[in-house]
Amino acid sequence: MLSTNEFQRLTSIKVRKYRELHRLFLVEGIKQVSEGINSRIKCEIIVISTKVINTFSEILRLAKESNVRCEALNEKDFERISETVKSQGIIGFFRIPKDSGVNFTSNNLIYLDRINDPGNMGTIIRTADWFGYRNILISPGCVDIYNPKVVRSTMGSIFRMNFQQEVTVDELKLLRREGYRILTTELSGKSLNSILFGKKNVVIMSSESHGVLPELSAISDGSIKILGEEGAESLNVGVAMGIILNKIFELESSNNE
Amino acid sequence: MLSTNEFQRLTSIKVRKYRELHRLFLVEGIKQVSEGINSRIKCEIIVISTKVINTFSEILRLAKESNVRCEALNEKDFERISETVKSQGIIGFFRIPKDSGVNFTSNNLIYLDRINDPGNMGTIIRTADWFGYRNILISPGCVDIYNPKVVRSTMGSIFRMNFQQEVTVDELKLLRREGYRILTTELSGKSLNSILFGKKNVVIMSSESHGVLPELSAISDGSIKILGEEGAESLNVGVAMGIILNKIFELESSNNE
Repeated sequence: MLSTNEFQRLTSIKVRKYRELHRLFLVEGIKQVSEGINSRIKCEIIVISTKVINTFSEILRLAKESNVRCEALNEKDFERISETVKSQGIIGFFRIPKDSGVNFTSNNLIYLDRINDPGNMGTIIRTADWFGYRNILISPGCVDIYNPKVVRSTMGSIFRMNFQQEVTVDELKLLRREGYRILTTELSGKSLNSILFGKKNVVIMSSESHGVLPELSAISDGSIKILGEEGAESLNVGVAMGIILNKIFELESSNNE
Repeated sequence: MLSTNEFQRLTSIKVRKYRELHRLFLVEGIKQVSEGINSRIKCEIIVISTKVINTFSEILRLAKESNVRCEALNEKDFERISETVKSQGIIGFFRIPKDSGVNFTSNNLIYLDRINDPGNMGTIIRTADWFGYRNILISPGCVDIYNPKVVRSTMGSIFRMNFQQEVTVDELKLLRREGYRILTTELSGKSLNSILFGKKNVVIMSSESHGVLPELSAISDGSIKILGEEGAESLNVGVAMGIILNKIFELESSNNE
């Protein structure tokens, strides 16, 4: 059984301040919780609604094997912890890992510049994972990557990524000196096909509402524009990133052939 | 002033049944409402919260020029009509246009197969617009394209598109006989670079949760897989579509050079 203190602690995890204080984030749903238990990230506790507990024998077995504590909660208490309206009745609480540090051995890095929409952030993380970009640098002013809406829309990718948060422009300058090409995405940029990619790239994706930070434009080695028809206004930042990463992936695959 | 009947009618537009009954959809925010007034779609009425009415002189002038009726509502009544939590205080109600019919003159068509997430649907419409695909075929079982969340995430693209809803597999077979290549997206498919695109293509995007409808697989002339690293689970459907449309756009641009 959960003590009152424990219950209050878990209820608070929806709020960024308490996630940071307790170094915990929450994941809802059977699929993502199972994926989390099988990942390198530590699951501290699983909470299950008594209403549906009988349908979770498989994951209870998995949790037992992995020495993860499980607690049942009545429906009303469960709903106080849950973030979603139509919850499956299972929530896992996972340890927020330490920031990975800026990784100088990774050939390709992504830098997210003030991305503040949780759905976009989740899609970006998921797309980065697909193309094998497992090291993501986060600027000050981004939405919290452990926000439950972000976590949900990563579809499990959150468990496979390394993050370094609060990365400044000065740190990017350091990467540039280490041989990385800094690439921004701007409507005034050049066609994706004419961009010279390096062996090591930092692909910068900026929020659609703010545009590229001028200090980032200033150190950019290449500004990318994805060509389209006249009339449309802009591409979603996750879609734009997918198109760019797919291009780099294609180029690298053809170089390796 | 709005009559009680009118007020009730506008309040009901959040619900699909009433959108279809009254043939109206709603758009929130100054930018999208202005774009709508300047589009080919008829704006029936604009409703503005008295709280912020003084900040909207520009759009009131535009509405007057375009003979669009404007009404002010007190904050409480405005909130009953509004769909968003942080509303800007302006909502436009637009006529749902008649379905465009399946367009046999368009070289490239998109067919959406049971896309049910509103955010995905909005991003898909916005991405299609970017690449100049202005004719979209919608399968039975998709989320309503005039759902306020869909409309919001199209970022104004909703006003530039032609839709044909409830399009069946039989109608796609007809398109195939007219010379269109039917292209599906499947994890079992072939690399995007090896796909033979025709002069006329129907790009089918299926919902991530349902996968491709077997009847669609059966008539597919090419099944596309976007290559990525091992380990990740899937790409967001809007991101996948962006990558495919970008590829077709690049191929057609290089053919025209």
